[in-house]
Amino acid sequence: MSNPSLLILAGDGIGPEVMTEVRRVIDWYGDKRDLKFDVSEDLVGGAAYDKHGTPLTDETMAKAQAVDAVLLGAVGGPKYDNLDFSVKPERGLLRLRKEMDLFSNLRPAQCFDALADFSSLKRDVVAGLDIVIVRELTSGIYFGEPRGIFKEGNERVGINTQRYTESEIDRVARSAFELARKRGNKVCSMEKANVMESGILWREVVQKVHDEDYPDVELSHMYADAGAMQLCRWPKQFDVIVTDNLFGDLLSDAAAMLTGSLGMLPSASLGAPMANGRPKALYEPVHGSAPDIAGQGKANPIACILSFAMALRYSFDQGDEATRLENAVEKVLADGLRTADLIGEEGVQPVSTREMGDAILAAL
Amino acid sequence: MSNPSLLILAGDGIGPEVMTEVRRVIDWYGDKRDLKFDVSEDLVGGAAYDKHGTPLTDETMAKAQAVDAVLLGAVGGPKYDNLDFSVKPERGLLRLRKEMDLFSNLRPAQCFDALADFSSLKRDVVAGLDIVIVRELTSGIYFGEPRGIFKEGNERVGINTQRYTESEIDRVARSAFELARKRGNKVCSMEKANVMESGILWREVVQKVHDEDYPDVELSHMYADAGAMQLCRWPKQFDVIVTDNLFGDLLSDAAAMLTGSLGMLPSASLGAPMANGRPKALYEPVHGSAPDIAGQGKANPIACILSFAMALRYSFDQGDEATRLENAVEKVLADGLRTADLIGEEGVQPVSTREMGDAILAAL
Ligand SMILES: CC(C)[C@H](C(=O)O)[C@@H](O)C(=O)O
Ligand SMILES: CC(C)[C@H](C(=O)O)[C@@H](O)C(=O)O
Repeated sequence: MSNPSLLILAGDGIGPEVMTEVRRVIDWYGDKRDLKFDVSEDLVGGAAYDKHGTPLTDETMAKAQAVDAVLLGAVGGPKYDNLDFSVKPERGLLRLRKEMDLFSNLRPAQCFDALADFSSLKRDVVAGLDIVIVRELTSGIYFGEPRGIFKEGNERVGINTQRYTESEIDRVARSAFELARKRGNKVCSMEKANVMESGILWREVVQKVHDEDYPDVELSHMYADAGAMQLCRWPKQFDVIVTDNLFGDLLSDAAAMLTGSLGMLPSASLGAPMANGRPKALYEPVHGSAPDIAGQGKANPIACILSFAMALRYSFDQGDEATRLENAVEKVLADGLRTADLIGEEGVQPVSTREMGDAILAAL
Repeated sequence: MSNPSLLILAGDGIGPEVMTEVRRVIDWYGDKRDLKFDVSEDLVGGAAYDKHGTPLTDETMAKAQAVDAVLLGAVGGPKYDNLDFSVKPERGLLRLRKEMDLFSNLRPAQCFDALADFSSLKRDVVAGLDIVIVRELTSGIYFGEPRGIFKEGNERVGINTQRYTESEIDRVARSAFELARKRGNKVCSMEKANVMESGILWREVVQKVHDEDYPDVELSHMYADAGAMQLCRWPKQFDVIVTDNLFGDLLSDAAAMLTGSLGMLPSASLGAPMANGRPKALYEPVHGSAPDIAGQGKANPIACILSFAMALRYSFDQGDEATRLENAVEKVLADGLRTADLIGEEGVQPVSTREMGDAILAAL
């Protein structure tokens, strides 16, 4: 049997430097645990635009479709802010999500014990927090048609369309219920059914999937604005939250920030199973490309390293090895190592991206 | 000259009981400050549905159009959850906003000193916080067409349309810049221009209004997901935030919760000036109808009372009287009075809605 294949798309900003550390971790698994991967690399986002005039070439897209898992760094940066919408760095990422049909985006918001004091929230509100936001990732207002800026009378109008079919809601609901069964067995679904018809359909389908196939899972519904409030007030009330693409974007970012561990949080975007039984999959940190600190060796590689841990677990059935990596990260944090983004307390000296990578390899 | 006119729409849940306290405050101004109002009352939301089969009758709508200001309590409740979309309680509120053309929704997120410890955020993150979210309130995905649940092949699809014209963006941007000039002179505009064309137009128009007519105001742009993060991390970086209807819904609720003062926060929804120079206006608390505690005398009337203070300031040019009322509220809080929603510390006994009203009247 050939080695499982990985495509690394480091992207822009701090993407390449954090991905360098991930490569070292991947190599470690090949050398020390005999878990070898065929790794290829390619461009996405602004980096791809600079070289090819497009944020994702058809060749790269084809490679992404062919591998067992994609690891992505981050895309975007002020340099590209004024590009035409169709070639913005983000379009590369969105094309990957859409064409790989990665409908289920798992975004854990977890508070690392060693970092609980780093949150803007009080310790007791976040310590031990461990929730997952399941965000629908291939539909909704991100992709609905019609969209664009049109002339109407003597002014312009900007239009986007929120659009969800029953089957799109059904499949992401299932993935949330499945996940909940492996965790706290509780799902909270969020929409604006009081204002949006697409939210009414969302609520109805989630309830139906629940009643028919997951009656054992505790299900509740919440308006997304109340959800944003409750996340800020007492996030531990949740276990799994399932929501649409746009709400998921805001809510998962807020939740991630609340943990105080933003530079630490990985994500998995999963699609349907491929012929080999593995799901189509892309793994990426929750944080962005952080152009302000790019190239300075200041970035925190942990979110990206933990994204590889998620790949071990969800794509390669190596839950134990994933745990090994997660434990190594916990140990390094408990030892007091901090990259610049994690410096809250006085007197702590930040380590560089590379030094953090070194420490994690040593802990492994 | 006749007295200025007020229409009170107490609505559902805790709406009526908090509005009872507001009426006493209004009466106090008539008796003690010779500020008399012609007050009428009517139904909205579930209360209107129960009586008339619609959450807002045409007669009530006409009254709202005719008065100088509307005071609204809250709408909605589980009793109405399964009503047809077109007669849900929320439709009454949305009709008022739309037909009165209340495009600029001012939502202060302010942390009351006496309550800083009540926030889930650390004291230094929220103490002294005083920002305003200006939410566009009459357009966007709340009102765009097409909308509905449609049959497509053999499944249903839920559709809503985000839609913004240049002039809609222009006018709400102006109201944000005007407000900023009276405050910290700083506006941050939030959208998802990296994903949505309507966001691109939003950013462009806000920038244009700024460059042409408000170059003295400091303007920045932020993606709404990053905005959600930054609100949770360090809200004091903001002064005025301007954003669309849906983002404003989530962001203002999150911001309100962060202050720890949710039961305290008023809002103003303003439209264009009427013939008498006053803007069309509706004032309501940020909190909802809280059906779980309705009718028990537990509700906090302060948000609704402070909404009347906003009316004094924005509709009736009585800034000093508004400040008097706000000071009375501050004093009562400083004295340690707390309704049940504000009980965090041990050993504090909550006061009732009525007792809180009494104390504020006494402080006046
Ligand atoms: C970069 C951007 C297109 C993206 C999104 O909006 O989905 C990002 O914010 C995310 O959450 O992954
Ligand atoms: C009640 C509901 C229709 C409303 C909204 O979504 O605008 C509320 O959440 C608000 O923020 O005023």
